[in-house]
Amino acid sequence: MEYRIERDTMGEVRVPADKYWGAQTQRSLENFRIGTDRFRMPLEIIRAYGMLKKAAARANLELGELPEEIAKAIIQAAEEVVQGKWDDHFPLVVFQTGSGTQTNMNVNEVIANRASEILGKPLGSKYVHPNDHVNRGQSSNDTFPTAMYVAVALALHQRLYPAVEGLIRTFTAKAQAFDHIVKVGRTHLMDAVPITLGQEIGSWAAQLKTTLAAVKEMEKGLYNLAIGGTAVGTGLNAHPRFGELVAKYLAEETGLPFRVAENRFAALAAHDELVNVMGAIRTLAGALMKIGNDVRWLASGPYAGIGEITIPANEPGSSIMPGKVNPTQVEALTMVVVRVFGNDHTVAFAGSQGNFQLNVYKPVMAYSTLESINLLADAVASFDTHLAQGIEPNLERIEEHLQKNPMLATALNKAIGYDKAAEIVKKALKEKKTLKQAALELGYLTEEEFDRIVVPLKLAKPHEG
Amino acid sequence: MEYRIERDTMGEVRVPADKYWGAQTQRSLENFRIGTDRFRMPLEIIRAYGMLKKAAARANLELGELPEEIAKAIIQAAEEVVQGKWDDHFPLVVFQTGSGTQTNMNVNEVIANRASEILGKPLGSKYVHPNDHVNRGQSSNDTFPTAMYVAVALALHQRLYPAVEGLIRTFTAKAQAFDHIVKVGRTHLMDAVPITLGQEIGSWAAQLKTTLAAVKEMEKGLYNLAIGGTAVGTGLNAHPRFGELVAKYLAEETGLPFRVAENRFAALAAHDELVNVMGAIRTLAGALMKIGNDVRWLASGPYAGIGEITIPANEPGSSIMPGKVNPTQVEALTMVVVRVFGNDHTVAFAGSQGNFQLNVYKPVMAYSTLESINLLADAVASFDTHLAQGIEPNLERIEEHLQKNPMLATALNKAIGYDKAAEIVKKALKEKKTLKQAALELGYLTEEEFDRIVVPLKLAKPHEG
Amino acid sequence: MEYRIERDTMGEVRVPADKYWGAQTQRSLENFRIGTDRFRMPLEIIRAYGMLKKAAARANLELGELPEEIAKAIIQAAEEVVQGKWDDHFPLVVFQTGSGTQTNMNVNEVIANRASEILGKPLGSKYVHPNDHVNRGQSSNDTFPTAMYVAVALALHQRLYPAVEGLIRTFTAKAQAFDHIVKVGRTHLMDAVPITLGQEIGSWAAQLKTTLAAVKEMEKGLYNLAIGGTAVGTGLNAHPRFGELVAKYLAEETGLPFRVAENRFAALAAHDELVNVMGAIRTLAGALMKIGNDVRWLASGPYAGIGEITIPANEPGSSIMPGKVNPTQVEALTMVVVRVFGNDHTVAFAGSQGNFQLNVYKPVMAYSTLESINLLADAVASFDTHLAQGIEPNLERIEEHLQKNPMLATALNKAIGYDKAAEIVKKALKEKKTLKQAALELGYLTEEEFDRIVVPLKLAKPHEG
Amino acid sequence: MEYRIERDTMGEVRVPADKYWGAQTQRSLENFRIGTDRFRMPLEIIRAYGMLKKAAARANLELGELPEEIAKAIIQAAEEVVQGKWDDHFPLVVFQTGSGTQTNMNVNEVIANRASEILGKPLGSKYVHPNDHVNRGQSSNDTFPTAMYVAVALALHQRLYPAVEGLIRTFTAKAQAFDHIVKVGRTHLMDAVPITLGQEIGSWAAQLKTTLAAVKEMEKGLYNLAIGGTAVGTGLNAHPRFGELVAKYLAEETGLPFRVAENRFAALAAHDELVNVMGAIRTLAGALMKIGNDVRWLASGPYAGIGEITIPANEPGSSIMPGKVNPTQVEALTMVVVRVFGNDHTVAFAGSQGNFQLNVYKPVMAYSTLESINLLADAVASFDTHLAQGIEPNLERIEEHLQKNPMLATALNKAIGYDKAAEIVKKALKEKKTLKQAALELGYLTEEEFDRIVVPLKLAKPHEG
Repeated sequence: MEYRIERDTMGEVRVPADKYWGAQTQRSLENFRIGTDRFRMPLEIIRAYGMLKKAAARANLELGELPEEIAKAIIQAAEEVVQGKWDDHFPLVVFQTGSGTQTNMNVNEVIANRASEILGKPLGSKYVHPNDHVNRGQSSNDTFPTAMYVAVALALHQRLYPAVEGLIRTFTAKAQAFDHIVKVGRTHLMDAVPITLGQEIGSWAAQLKTTLAAVKEMEKGLYNLAIGGTAVGTGLNAHPRFGELVAKYLAEETGLPFRVAENRFAALAAHDELVNVMGAIRTLAGALMKIGNDVRWLASGPYAGIGEITIPANEPGSSIMPGKVNPTQVEALTMVVVRVFGNDHTVAFAGSQGNFQLNVYKPVMAYSTLESINLLADAVASFDTHLAQGIEPNLERIEEHLQKNPMLATALNKAIGYDKAAEIVKKALKEKKTLKQAALELGYLTEEEFDRIVVPLKLAKPHEG
Repeated sequence: MEYRIERDTMGEVRVPADKYWGAQTQRSLENFRIGTDRFRMPLEIIRAYGMLKKAAARANLELGELPEEIAKAIIQAAEEVVQGKWDDHFPLVVFQTGSGTQTNMNVNEVIANRASEILGKPLGSKYVHPNDHVNRGQSSNDTFPTAMYVAVALALHQRLYPAVEGLIRTFTAKAQAFDHIVKVGRTHLMDAVPITLGQEIGSWAAQLKTTLAAVKEMEKGLYNLAIGGTAVGTGLNAHPRFGELVAKYLAEETGLPFRVAENRFAALAAHDELVNVMGAIRTLAGALMKIGNDVRWLASGPYAGIGEITIPANEPGSSIMPGKVNPTQVEALTMVVVRVFGNDHTVAFAGSQGNFQLNVYKPVMAYSTLESINLLADAVASFDTHLAQGIEPNLERIEEHLQKNPMLATALNKAIGYDKAAEIVKKALKEKKTLKQAALELGYLTEEEFDRIVVPLKLAKPHEG
Repeated sequence: MEYRIERDTMGEVRVPADKYWGAQTQRSLENFRIGTDRFRMPLEIIRAYGMLKKAAARANLELGELPEEIAKAIIQAAEEVVQGKWDDHFPLVVFQTGSGTQTNMNVNEVIANRASEILGKPLGSKYVHPNDHVNRGQSSNDTFPTAMYVAVALALHQRLYPAVEGLIRTFTAKAQAFDHIVKVGRTHLMDAVPITLGQEIGSWAAQLKTTLAAVKEMEKGLYNLAIGGTAVGTGLNAHPRFGELVAKYLAEETGLPFRVAENRFAALAAHDELVNVMGAIRTLAGALMKIGNDVRWLASGPYAGIGEITIPANEPGSSIMPGKVNPTQVEALTMVVVRVFGNDHTVAFAGSQGNFQLNVYKPVMAYSTLESINLLADAVASFDTHLAQGIEPNLERIEEHLQKNPMLATALNKAIGYDKAAEIVKKALKEKKTLKQAALELGYLTEEEFDRIVVPLKLAKPHEG
Repeated sequence: MEYRIERDTMGEVRVPADKYWGAQTQRSLENFRIGTDRFRMPLEIIRAYGMLKKAAARANLELGELPEEIAKAIIQAAEEVVQGKWDDHFPLVVFQTGSGTQTNMNVNEVIANRASEILGKPLGSKYVHPNDHVNRGQSSNDTFPTAMYVAVALALHQRLYPAVEGLIRTFTAKAQAFDHIVKVGRTHLMDAVPITLGQEIGSWAAQLKTTLAAVKEMEKGLYNLAIGGTAVGTGLNAHPRFGELVAKYLAEETGLPFRVAENRFAALAAHDELVNVMGAIRTLAGALMKIGNDVRWLASGPYAGIGEITIPANEPGSSIMPGKVNPTQVEALTMVVVRVFGNDHTVAFAGSQGNFQLNVYKPVMAYSTLESINLLADAVASFDTHLAQGIEPNLERIEEHLQKNPMLATALNKAIGYDKAAEIVKKALKEKKTLKQAALELGYLTEEEFDRIVVPLKLAKPHEG
């Protein structure tokens, strides 16, 4: 392998000749062999950093803080980072310094070298300087949280929201299609008064809607960027208008209303907005756990389970039991859910551990949140495509369960009171009779009254025609 | 002890003669000896249930669903419950049935017996019937979550918000008072560029403001009540307008904009809004962990710590070390924080475990959230009164730390570049010289330039006059 | 209320005349109004402290560190604390100083005053001195963790182990009684090859046995006491043999093999043994979650669920649905489980937050662990008595499910191979035929072969007779 | 790309011509696009599966359950899997079916095709059959947990134990080297009685030893393998001696005492042993959090922190503050710790969610545990090499802190009592005098007495010479 020499304030370092990175990246690479390969700093962060460095160069140019030649080369190089042209030049792992300084320097070094190259200067020349030019008016302490928030907000919009909204659409369509199918309700896992299959599936759509809305509400916190705060929040070495201009350019590029955080000291020292987003994502994940469990129980069987719906048979389910088919999409989804719960724990714990002017758990917070978003987006889309869209009612089983339902007696409360209705149910269960038989034998109603009152569809939709 | 006989659909039960509760309460008392005494259903839930039963009787009266005599007696009895007149009549524990049915019946039974008594009828007569009258148009499945949300929303308003807002005021006042005190900043626990003590304390106020705002935002979800859904969400046995009227009366009574949930199936089967509130409370708790740690570190010493602030000496700190004083209020506060983190875990786990039309973890969700709110409110108020209001700067120590701060060299970046500034710092540290000495010896600046640029206050407030 | 004056190193304090506590207890009472009433320091800790103070006085007497008169009075007073005679004299809450110093001083003060009284001296006289005599050779920093470990170990032995062992016995007896009842197995919630009901219930007993064994294994860590380490682990001010003697006397009193921790610095600075115990308790709780869920699903119905077992009907289950009965004991149990998971989170988080020579989260760690032990003990005993002992098979349902089970075809693998067996299953399911019909139609086996191989009991117990 | 046709019981599937995998692997690949690339089933699992399939073929050969030709080809192919020769042929992700069936089939298919090839038969011919031969006597339900336990136990031995033991050695050596350096102790972050730096670092070694011992104790649970239980625990289709033989061969191959689990029903339905291991790993991680925090605080400064030790300066620490150096290895380590806490949460939650005869969260449990082990091993080794081995005392600072330490007065307790000692401390602090000055002025001791008693080294090592 060929090398060239790069320098930082600690001295000389050999770096691979074909890579743009410089001395500090190389040091980090050697000092942090932790989760190598598996735990690379997410490309979402690198891309967001590219946008940020571009916006910063534009702002500095506008404010007269950088020479035009330098600024333009930085803008071009940063745009290439955004485009993913240099993904191989960002080799660092998440488990590095907790401020993300090494990744900030990785970005600074790659852009500085690439920009120097654009301007015809040799790599390592610092003609475009990673600190004095690319990092102008910035610190890791304000840029890393800025990149985190931009990356997470974009991941939400590009990945999580479309996936969940797709599933909401599927459930909404199913709810409409099955709106007329009356079935037994279940509370405490016990037979309860009837609902329709449409109502049941509609409640899943409703949970997803409200939990997604909460994620979106919490996402708004991410619009408040640390940028402009530099090292400790004071904005030392940044032009007074720098932060606000960078936020404006980032808003333009992303279409999201980024702005400068009201208190930039807090924006470096804590990432409460991210903890809130993660918490809301966890609630959404919890809703998916409930929905996934409902689906697999409703589809359980074929004979010794509930079996009120069927779901697609996608693969052979057993290496030993021939012909077995399992609710595997639910299993993948709920495994993602428990993973997301764990990540939420990580993020909240990390978020509480800041000291003074800095929280040094930034990379793991960003990583765990992005992992959660991506996994949920993938799993929800897979569940939607390979399972939810194929849900069908098993009408025979639904009807069988409904007919025997002793809780239809609840409809009698108003006519004869709770106590007598209970007597009817107990008699029916004990003597294995129908509710009607038991009711007539007890003499609490006439057959006509019973038939008028105990109509499953009227129980499921009591306030409709 | 004297007893009377009460009856439910399973038969006769002996209950203490001096208590209003009936057969089902007594059964629960005997069947659930779990955490007896320590884990009584919170009175906040009982009071909210009182409001709810009052509102329900008003609605049923208005809708012609209850005779006026009965309704009015219920309203009076329920109001007495709200007033706390019968607190001893609610003996059940949290760890009962997961729908809270037994507490709903406890409330129904107490109100029914008390209302019967008001109307001159004997206890146990069911003249006012616990199910047919007090529970009219209701189920545990919609009333318990309604009571939960009302209770939690009120606890937030009555307990958590005032406490946190008090602390925000204290910090804001301190931030103003200490706005001019320049001190060393710290990132990675290492000396960093200066800030003012006001900025530092102001960042605490800022964290509390934004995390409290998120709690308030999530609280809005609690306004969506399950009431009117009855057993499974369909509203069976409730008048079509019942839920909406009850919500209106609850809104009147509490001053909070309660309304009926858009999807009442989901409102029984899940309590995502509560999980979201708890998650936001956890973020607030995480902010308090950070703030508490900052305070105790800043006050550490007296000689071998940081010692930049002093805090009130409230008690002797050691049974063996004479004269020792400790940051005990921080310790109480951060112990509450870890407890709240645990409760959040409980609530989120429980929230994910619903099945079909019901989540049967309601009582533990309500309990853990209310415990968190009350503990945080108490601990924040205590911390405010006994510590925060007494924070004072230790000017001597602050100045000593500031003078030696090598990171003041950061101000030189613009004039001489990052690399040369680093050289100055390294030389100063190695040779134990001042920055100015090192700078002059290296010849990078004149003394006049150095003195003009390296002014701590200008570093802390770079964009002011 | 009448008062007397007590003194500590900070000055005079008024305390209630009828209480033994002194100045420091009173200060704590006034400074920490956090969770008052609900969060009193557990009596388990107070009693363990009583044992410890008694053992300490015995050791000091033996070592010539206390005059006999003083030592004996302390021993008597401490024994009264152990007996619960002065429970009302320990009013402090958990959320106090994180070292538990205030509770240590509460114990010291009560014993000192009571011992002075025994010796005919006035309260507040410090004739027996709380620090110099009762706390002789001790610090809060070594006594509080010692009391924690003693209290938790005793609670395990007195409360958790008997409860869980009782349930293991119940399940073992049921497993034997139902050993011959062949039923459908379920994997992925789908019908699988048969097992017996005895095997199914036996697996619950097995889980409880192994998880309980792990708790007992981790409990051994608690035998290593901090005592003798005094303020920071060095043992300053304690006789060199003090710790070892105290441990010996505690072992005598409790019957548990307490000894001095190998490294007492670590024993003050961290409580990893407690975190391990809590973690193992959590695993046990997780096993109970699985078991509880199995029970409620197996008992679900009566008609639209699985319904293979019946459980006792303890209370009416619904305020609106007459005759409904629910698996309420499971609900209480699993609510306890999620609470225990939360407490585990609290304990582990707290356990990680020590600094230098002390972890200041001791009280919340002890409290959360003891709460978990007590709740689990109560809930397991309640579940055992009110549910597990009443489990009965529903033979009709079991047989109905078994007969239809398509996975019986697995027995054919060896004879005809997995692929052909799968063909039979698919044909049977599709054409709604029995396996035998499908097998014969496909011609893969003779009827005689089929009947010989496909025998449910032989599938459930393939290696017997 | 070239393809060939493979078949399973659902029909034909196209698979890449150059891969050994078959139809079921291909279906999974297409149906589970969740975390593709990032979340491949860990190679540790694949290798353990290779060992298992080899052992199974040996056992089946010995028991006469497989023809010799077939068995030997399987053994060779499986050994190649163990050697890592076919790593690219295991493309499936973790988020698949929760039993790991698809990975079991992936292994079966790769080995079947490779073994067929060895025997000169075409890929896809099923000459060696994935189910009937490679999976002989097995199910995913018993093989996946077996592979999980083998993989985790090996990872502990190969990765975690050496790393932690290395750090223990480093700390032990440092503790010996610095055993004589007396310094201020700290409790509640406040100056406390002295210890030696060796004692302080020795307590870190002690924590690591006891928490590692607990991991090893819990690891023993992993030796109990599910193998031989097949689909539901009954052992259907396996030779009665199969499980025991496989365990024996696995023990031979790994050097770990694997055996068959006492209750194989429980071994499929739950993985409590894994939850226990993860819990113990979390405690170890919590100890590392404490240690890491101690290190960074002790090294904080250079001027405005504690600064009692120095640590290696590995990289420039700031993109904006020249010359800044940070405790980055601690930051990486503690970020790993919070990640491990999250993974522990995932594993425990997942472990509680089994139903009936199967827990379908196996892959995520295995993945999260292995991730934790690998990250901790990497981070501990990195911390050891790049930081711990370079810890040096800052004697000047240590001495400065020690001299001022007011808690040295604790040594006076025995001579003059706690109350008078406190008076001395208070006077010294208030009047900024030395303890000796204050003591003499108060007249409680002579100078000779004071000098004899108040000797820091005697306080730190009270029971030596």
